This record gives sequence, C-alpha cells and structure tokens, in this order.
Amino acid sequence: MPANRQVVIASLPTGKLESSDFSTRIVETPVLEDGQILCRTVAFTIGAGQRAGLQGSASYAGAPVTGVVMGGTGLAIVEESRNPLLAPGNAVVAPTGWQDYSIHMASALRRVESATDPALELGALGGNGLTAYFGLLDIGRPRAGETVVVSAAAGSVGHMVGQIAKREKCRVVGVAGSDEKCRMLVEDLGFDAAVNYKDPEFRAAFKDATPDRIDIYFDNTGGDVLGSALFRMNTHGRIVCCGVVSQYDTANPGPGPRGIPGLLVNNRVRMEGFLVFDFLERYDEARRDLSAWIDAGEITPKVSEFQGLESAPDAFVALLAGATVGTTLVHVR
Amino acid sequence: MPANRQVVIASLPTGKLESSDFSTRIVETPVLEDGQILCRTVAFTIGAGQRAGLQGSASYAGAPVTGVVMGGTGLAIVEESRNPLLAPGNAVVAPTGWQDYSIHMASALRRVESATDPALELGALGGNGLTAYFGLLDIGRPRAGETVVVSAAAGSVGHMVGQIAKREKCRVVGVAGSDEKCRMLVEDLGFDAAVNYKDPEFRAAFKDATPDRIDIYFDNTGGDVLGSALFRMNTHGRIVCCGVVSQYDTANPGPGPRGIPGLLVNNRVRMEGFLVFDFLERYDEARRDLSAWIDAGEITPKVSEFQGLESAPDAFVALLAGATVGTTLVHVR
Repeated sequence: MPANRQVVIASLPTGKLESSDFSTRIVETPVLEDGQILCRTVAFTIGAGQRAGLQGSASYAGAPVTGVVMGGTGLAIVEESRNPLLAPGNAVVAPTGWQDYSIHMASALRRVESATDPALELGALGGNGLTAYFGLLDIGRPRAGETVVVSAAAGSVGHMVGQIAKREKCRVVGVAGSDEKCRMLVEDLGFDAAVNYKDPEFRAAFKDATPDRIDIYFDNTGGDVLGSALFRMNTHGRIVCCGVVSQYDTANPGPGPRGIPGLLVNNRVRMEGFLVFDFLERYDEARRDLSAWIDAGEITPKVSEFQGLESAPDAFVALLAGATVGTTLVHVR
Repeated sequence: MPANRQVVIASLPTGKLESSDFSTRIVETPVLEDGQILCRTVAFTIGAGQRAGLQGSASYAGAPVTGVVMGGTGLAIVEESRNPLLAPGNAVVAPTGWQDYSIHMASALRRVESATDPALELGALGGNGLTAYFGLLDIGRPRAGETVVVSAAAGSVGHMVGQIAKREKCRVVGVAGSDEKCRMLVEDLGFDAAVNYKDPEFRAAFKDATPDRIDIYFDNTGGDVLGSALFRMNTHGRIVCCGVVSQYDTANPGPGPRGIPGLLVNNRVRMEGFLVFDFLERYDEARRDLSAWIDAGEITPKVSEFQGLESAPDAFVALLAGATVGTTLVHVR
C-alpha cells in the first residue's frame, strides 16, 4: 500500500491560528476491509467555519482533539474498491481530510463525473454554493427590488450569495475587508456597491450604500458588521445567520450586538440560523440550478488555489486573515 | 363641559421611572366638532412596553415629549357624539390616555358590548391577550409535547402565553421575579414549572426545569433570561421576541447576549420580533378563540387593579418593579 502523507492537528489554537498548530506525518495506508473504498485526494477545500471546529463548545461538530488528521471535504479518485458500487478511477467527493489517502464506506461518497474541476465540484456546486443557495433563497426569501447585504462578501459563500441575489433582481451590497475585494465585487461580480469594513468611515459608507435600508442581511461574520446591519434593517427584514467568522479566530468571542432583542421587536425582524445539512434532500435541485446559472454566465465562481498538501496550514491562516477570495482550494500534489 | 383631570408626563426618566415623573392638571374639555365623540374613561391598562415609549430612540412609537397626557388604552363610555355611528351610553375601547375625558374620531374607537368588565376587554381580549395569542401561535408555532418557556411569566402577556401553550399540550415553564409569582403560575394557572430569576441558583434551577431543553422561548424581557434560554434551545427552536422589559427602566441598556449569532447557527434557531398591530385583520378571530377558552375555563386571566386616576403613576412604578401580576388596570374613579 502507498505511504500516506497526513496533516494533523498538533495543538489547539488559544488565540489566532498559526501554521505551527499543524504538523505533517507519513503513515501506512491500512488494508481495505469488505465494503471499503480507498480514495486518493486530488484537492480539498478549507472553510472559515472549520476554525470553529477547533474551538470546542462553540461548534456543532463536537469538541476538537489533537493528533488527528485535520478534516475537510475533497475531490478524490477511487484507487481500490471492495464495494461493487464504485470502481478504481471513479471520481468522488469525500470527507478526505488533509491527506493523500483516505478510506470510506460508499455511503460517505458522492460520485461525480470527473476529477478535472475540483473548484467547481467543491465550491460552487459543493458546500459553499449550496449554503449560499439555501441560505439566501429559503431562509432569506428575497423579493425583486429588495436590498440584500452580505458580509464576508468576497468569501466562499458570500460571493455566491451576492450573485444569486442579483439574479433575483435585488440591490446587492457587499461588505469585505479590503478595497481590492470591494472593487472585485462591483467590477467583476456585478454587486451594486461594496464597503470595506476596515475603513475608519465604515458606518457612514455603509449607510450611503444602503439608501433604502436593508431587507435581507446575510451574515457570515457576526460582530460589528452584524451590529451595524441591525440598526439599518427595514420592517419585516430578515437576518440570515450563516457564519460567525469574526468570532472564530480568537480565544475571547465578544458579547452579542446591542439592540438584541429590542430592534428585532420594533422592526419585526426575523433572525434565523441554518446549516446546509438541513437541506440535504434538496441538494440535487440546487446543484441543477447553480450549474445552469454558471453555464449561462449569470454566476461567476471565484477560487483561491494553493499547491501541495503541505500548503494547507498556510492556506487556512491566509483564509482566516482575509487574504483569499472565493473558495479556498488546496491541490494535494 | 365637564372639567377634565389629566396625568401628564412632567419629566422624562433618566434612570428608573418615579411617580414624580408625572403631574396632574385639570383642563376644560373642548367643544366637539363635527364627527367627533367625547368619551369618559372608565378604566385603562398600563403595559411595561409603555416605559420604552419614554426612552426615545428605542421605541417604535417615536420620540417622547413632556407636557402631554400619558398615553394608554382604556374602556370608556360615550358621553356626547357628533357622529351617527356612536351614541351616548355606548361602551368603547379607546386610546383614552390617563384622563377623565378624551375626544376621538369614530375610526379610533372599537365598540364593545358593555363597560362592566374592563379587565377582560382591555386584558385578555385586549392588546395583552392578542399579543400572547399571535406571538405564541403564529410566531412560535408550538407543537404538542414541545417545551415552551416564557419570561415575565406572571405579567400581562406572559400569563396568557403559558396558558395558551398548555392548551396546545406543551410543557410550560415560567420565569418570574418572586417565589410567590412562581407558586401562582404552577398552582393557579397550571404551569408545569416556574423559576425565580432572582434566585442565586437560577441557572441550575432553570436547567432542572427544562430537562428536554427548550423548543420555544417567548421572550418578554431580553437580558439575562434571554441569555440563559439561548444556551438551552433545541435544534430548530424558536425565540419569540415580544418585549424587552429588562431594558426599559434604565438609562443604560446592556449589550446583547453572548452567543448571538453563533448559537442561532449551530442550533438553527429562529429568533423573530413582532408587534401585535401586524395582525390587525385577524383580531376578531383571536378574540373569538380567547373568549371561548376563557368561557370554557381553559384560561384564567389575572389582573392587578388600582383605584383612582391619581393612582396611575404608582401603578406604573409598581408594574415596572414587578409588584403586579397579569394585566395592570387603573379604575379612573
């Protein structure tokens, strides 16, 4: 069996995540048992939400431990199969983790046509695209002419949310962490406006960018941007709670925003959290839509690519520092 | 025309409200113009939410001013009418304010059968009962067997919420501010459990009272009780944001609860604010239901009564101090 390079969690971060919180080891690949499938990872994505998984109690994924392979969703090729459902050479999306080889039961795998476009399979048609789709359309329920604001707008989910909202004929305002990202959102992706939350004049710029206030705020960050959005919600507005990236990479998450729950009452605002897994039975429908919109040129997925398994810790740190746009993808070799 | 006693806002409270923030004056009742109706107030209710109206920016009712009659909803008798729709002797619910006489157009009045039961007309069948009805049933959407927690549970809205939830076959837990109120909730009103939030062991008692965690938290208070409830919400739980009584009687509302929005995401919680006015077109339906449930003995409305217009400031202070139960009612004379 081939040797298997693995990136493992060496220490749990107490403040900001560092590359040194991970280490690399080489182990032997176990022999397959009946029903199992050996997969070779082609590429995997990293999401900001995975930082929450290293925090313990705050995550839905349970308490983190060290000494285990860092988790993640990858695109892989079946190398060996002891299951009649899949054969060597088949391409699959799998919970590969950060390693060359992983072993699965067939139920954990999703067959895809080919392994040639990991960015599409893992990004726009993967968890990121599905999260944007269900969060905006099912939780946010946009109507034409409404104002949709999205935070972490240049991120894996955010850049999809904004483009789907444009398709729904909404006015779309992105909040991102650099002027360069803001330009990209408006010039490349067709956002109506974008505001840099690191700008000292952010509050004034945010107000200027939302002259009709906000009907849907798609929240990927929590924290100060949520706090600003709360004060600009229209009556019967909706806040889609998708992620809390402002609180992940720290040992001391701040208090909740002022105005909760008073502003929700006065403006009759609905604030609703969701996880994409709740929509599992509608993934195919969503993938068909997203695929058609991408083919029609209505949506342009973005990706930040890193080369080599060993680049994964740096990619994660870069992602959390806001140095990536779109889906963060690591090509394993 | 008769002389009209009025209680006016003398000063805007900067900290806790005091009786001295009000003063009394006697004015002449103006002569009626065409279409107007002169009403003599029999009784009026005071709600904790009216304290928010004295805070300015935090309220949906606009900025407060001094020198005006304190607002409020009353039961009144038509004394004189220059409108064919109403005749002297008719009983009406009206925005009387804290005074003997008030003048209205017919559109502001709701005719009721008689003025003999102001507690019922202004409480269980008035804004309090309607708020409980729509908030629990339409925003909370209870299912049999679910756990419903309500804060300010002995208050005007809370004690109705708990009883309606029992009718829906839910397990009902009240949070209130004294052991006496807690006993009343369980022994008189059939709550399954009640917890005193002033108890130093509140968190442990709250946990014990919600062994299956919480499906619906009906929030009349915000603040610490909301903070505790957030950490005990079940997956797909709902938080009905009805009032923020913990924040009304102070110059310095605290920050929002920790865990917003992270806990909403992880547990897929919906947190939704509402105002009863949004359900205006369904008031008749709700009154029919509430009336039938009261007649059947399934719901027992509670009332705290005060005698005399001059008692209104003390009644308001008592209400905010948690010294009343159910609807707070002032009989004008």
